[in-house]
Order: sequence, then C-alpha cells, then structure tokens
Amino acid sequence: MHLPTWSDVIGAHERIAPHIRRTEILTSNALDRQAGATLFFKCENLQPPGAFKVRGACNAVFGLSEERASKGVATHSSGNHALCLAYAAGRRGIPCDVVMPRTAPQAKKDAVIGYGGRITECEPSTSSREEVFAGVQAESGGDFVHPYNDPRVIAGQATCAREFLDQVRDLDLLLAPIGGGGMISGTCLTVASVAPHVRVYAAEPEQADDAMRSLRAGRIIADDAPETIADGLKVPLKELTWHFVSKHVTDILTASEQEIIDAMKLSWKRLRQVIEPSCAVPLAVILKNPETFAGKRVGVIVTGGNVDLDRLPWTKH
Amino acid sequence: MHLPTWSDVIGAHERIAPHIRRTEILTSNALDRQAGATLFFKCENLQPPGAFKVRGACNAVFGLSEERASKGVATHSSGNHALCLAYAAGRRGIPCDVVMPRTAPQAKKDAVIGYGGRITECEPSTSSREEVFAGVQAESGGDFVHPYNDPRVIAGQATCAREFLDQVRDLDLLLAPIGGGGMISGTCLTVASVAPHVRVYAAEPEQADDAMRSLRAGRIIADDAPETIADGLKVPLKELTWHFVSKHVTDILTASEQEIIDAMKLSWKRLRQVIEPSCAVPLAVILKNPETFAGKRVGVIVTGGNVDLDRLPWTKH
Repeated sequence: MHLPTWSDVIGAHERIAPHIRRTEILTSNALDRQAGATLFFKCENLQPPGAFKVRGACNAVFGLSEERASKGVATHSSGNHALCLAYAAGRRGIPCDVVMPRTAPQAKKDAVIGYGGRITECEPSTSSREEVFAGVQAESGGDFVHPYNDPRVIAGQATCAREFLDQVRDLDLLLAPIGGGGMISGTCLTVASVAPHVRVYAAEPEQADDAMRSLRAGRIIADDAPETIADGLKVPLKELTWHFVSKHVTDILTASEQEIIDAMKLSWKRLRQVIEPSCAVPLAVILKNPETFAGKRVGVIVTGGNVDLDRLPWTKH
Repeated sequence: MHLPTWSDVIGAHERIAPHIRRTEILTSNALDRQAGATLFFKCENLQPPGAFKVRGACNAVFGLSEERASKGVATHSSGNHALCLAYAAGRRGIPCDVVMPRTAPQAKKDAVIGYGGRITECEPSTSSREEVFAGVQAESGGDFVHPYNDPRVIAGQATCAREFLDQVRDLDLLLAPIGGGGMISGTCLTVASVAPHVRVYAAEPEQADDAMRSLRAGRIIADDAPETIADGLKVPLKELTWHFVSKHVTDILTASEQEIIDAMKLSWKRLRQVIEPSCAVPLAVILKNPETFAGKRVGVIVTGGNVDLDRLPWTKH
C-alpha cells in the first residue's frame, strides 16, 4: 500500500494549479443563525468541470510520463470523477475511457462526452462496474486512475483542504461528504500534516451508510448497490481511504433522504449556488447535530454542482 | 435634477465597503464557445441579500445624518431594492417601510420581513404602487429611497462597474439588464468617468421593452403594467436614469420570454449559480446577437439570485 505524503500534496498543488480554480469561500448569516455555528463553504462546484475531483484527476493525468500518457487514462465512476478525468485528459490531449452506471445523471454523461471522453455503461452496482471496467481497460491499456483509491488522487484532493486552511483562519473542524473517501482522505492528510488540532468529520446518507458502519466496526463494510439521491456517495471505502478514515476521522454522521433534499434546497436558497444532493449531506448533519457543531467554526467542502436541472428532487417531473 | 458625479461614486464605495461583498467573476469555456465571445460574469447574486441593489441601498442608508436616519427609510420596489433597503436599514438599526406588488415573489417578501422591514402591498402596476406609497410615506416620515431615480442609489450601483473594471482588464463592453435603469446608469457613470472606450449595452425583455422604445424615440416611454418573467425589469425609466441611458448607452437589445428562460437554465448549468430570470436577459441577447458580441470581451453584470425555488420556469408546478 503506497500512502501519499504531505510532499506529494505540495507537488500536486503545483502541478494542478494551472488547471484548477482556487475556489471561493461563501458564508450565510441566515444559515449561521439556523445552525448556531459559523459556517464556511468552499465552493468546489465552481471548478471548471464542476467538482473537486478535478484536483485528483489533474494530478494523476499531468503526473504521467509522456510514454504512459500516450495510451491515455481509464476509470470507472459514478459521475464526477469520470467527467473530471475526461476534462484533465482533454487538457493534456490524451484519450480517456470511462465506465459509468447507466443510471448516472445525464448531465454527467453529457459532460464526459463534451470533454472528449468515451463512455461504456454498466449496471449501477459495484460488482458490475468493476467487471465491465476490467474489459475496457484490458483493451485500451490506459493508465487506471481509480476515483479515490489511488495515492495521486488523494494527494490531489488534499489540496482543497490546504487552500481552505489558508483562506479561513481558526477553523475548529472540517466536514465533507463521504462516498469512497477520497476527499475525506485528502482532508485528513492535510489536517494531520499542518493543522492537527482541526477535527475532521464526514457526512453520509443514512441509506448508504457503509462508511459509518465501517468506522464503528473497525473494518471496511461494503454494500453492493445502495440507493440514495446522493448519487456521488454510493461507493465503498477501499484500503487507502480506509487508512485515513480509520486513523483521522473523528466521526461520521448520517442524514435521511428528506433531510438531504431539504438541506440541498436550503443551500440553493441561501448560498445561491447550484449544488448536488451529495454536497447537501454536510449541511443536513450540521442542522441535525447541534451538540457537535454549535458554537464552532466549521469548514464545509461543497463538492460539486453537476445537477440534472430537469429532475430537481423538490419539483414534480 | 441632481446628477451623481464620480466623486460621489468614490465616496459611496468607501461608505458601503463594510456592508457589501466585492463579488466574484466567473467564466465558462462552454458559454464562451456558444457565444463566440469571452464572457465575464460579475456575480452580484452573491451579495449578502442576493442582489446588486444592496450597493445603492447601503449608500443611501449609511449616508443619512443621525437625525434623518432616526425616522427610518421607505421605498416601493418590485423586490430586490425592497429587501436590500431592509438589509441596509437593519444593519444601521433604523426602521424600513416598503410597498411591494402583491404579485412579488414570496422569497423576496420573506426576505424583507426577515431583515426587519415592514411590507404594505399594492397592485402590480406603477400607478397603484406610487399611490399606495404616498400614503405609507406620509405616515412614517421616513427618508424616501427611490429604487433607482435617486443620485445616492445610482452612485452606489456605479461601484459595481468600478470593481468590474478593476477585476477584468481590457473589457470591450459591459452589459446589464435594464428595468428602471439604476444599474445601467451607475455603469454609464463609471465607464464615462474612467473607461470611456468601453461600450455600455442594456438587455431588456421584449414584453417590457419600454427602455428600448424610449432610446429609439428620444424620450421616456413608460408602460403601466408590463408582463414578463423577468420581474425585476417591469419598471420605467425616470429622469435621472434617462439622462445616463440617453447619453451613454450604445444600444438596448431585447429577448423573448422563452429565450430568457433558456438563458436562465443555461446559466444555472454552466455557471452553477442560482440567478433570477432578470439576470438571464443579458446572456439571452448575447446568444441572439453575435454580430454585436462575437470576438469581444464582454462583462455581464449578474444582478441577483432571489428566486422562488418552487416555481422554476422550466419545471411543472
């Protein structure tokens, strides 16, 4: 197991700087009042391809030797990693193959194609995804960039917390959604390296709470096909992310589907940002757990903004 | 007629700085490709109360003497000026009376009340609004802050273009929606003062195109109750704004209701910003008039983000 280090994070940040946005921090007095806390939202939905995963994807793509890069890259992903890898590959001018669940939001599929990526569809389960991917990758020979269980990806995601700590002083804790654990692992890596007094919490849908159960059990528990509106958070932890989660995460808190939808709508209203259901899980758990967050300075990583605007969860369709 | 000057703008900027956000500029490669132009969007939807009108409102409120301020402020407004004036008055701790059309979006009414403002409703026509307001203001004695025909308000709005020119070099033109003309007048004032080579265009709904017809006719034409989804743009020009519009605006371009809705949805998708229908009119006219905008560096003022999320124009309700 090759663990990324702090010097990998610094190297990643330099490598990806020309390709990413140092994203803005937004605040809302109304949300602060409602939460009884001081909340800072780092808007990764404003990354060019609309999600934090551009950080890890760019670090992997631009770190490849010319020879390795010539065969392109390949991955499987529930959405944002796919389109961010396609974006990164497009900027380097190399091929990109992605395996996506057929149920992934159309907006994400369109974006992959828009960036020049090639999509192969699979069933919406981890088992189908891995099986289909093996075939695709065997054919292309592209470099496999796992959506989160890859030290290059974790080092890339870690640059987000690095910026956050630089942009907002005296944070008590950082909070991000957890699916496979790439962003949380990067956050842990940064915090453990430069701000060990800052606590790291993760937020997860009740209906895909495998990371929470893993943390309680002390070992990885993986569900094959959980169902949640937070479509970015259905994947299980893997050994690299489990390392960081088990060592550095203070707690994983969960929210129901309705709580996620309510927090999503509230974020749109108060922050005036288009954000995905997955990004609303942190706000949902903040509002649900005042004993953990009240009175604190809380940094929330808003992970992405690629939404099917025709299928908003609070409107009829 | 007391016209605001450049030194009023500088004074306003200093006065309001503690109360407003120096808003971010967003760009989108996808929108640039679609428009054939280089577009910069200044996101006034990120102002604390969600609209550029906080600039003029804060300038008026914080410019009052203690004695004048003690009686509070009063206004009539189709929405954002009302809630921004309530926000400004709330920060100074003085009363604020607003007359709003009963048809104004509920989100805007709620915000006025949330900031501590008092609402009196009128019919959705200019004549009813002015009549009801006269009664309200006679009673409170508050300082009347007109939503746009007020030199303090125009000087405040002018600070937006001042920041924009500082944030983005070499703009060829600036474009904003036009209703009563406060933002456009402020933009003209700034541009005429410090960047006279930059052209100013305005964008207006076809169904409320009184400013365009005024410019063509060489005199103010006012409609009593135009109907458009761009609810912030229904009000007519007045003598102060007509001065700036008639002297400095290169052209006023219009878009249909469907073009506005399409541009609104496109903005949400590409910029990942929650913006009002009114703010989408500029993008609609850019896409419709490539002969004017193609190849240019275009600054677009995104005016506000207070939207009823339950009544989005592209969803059933």
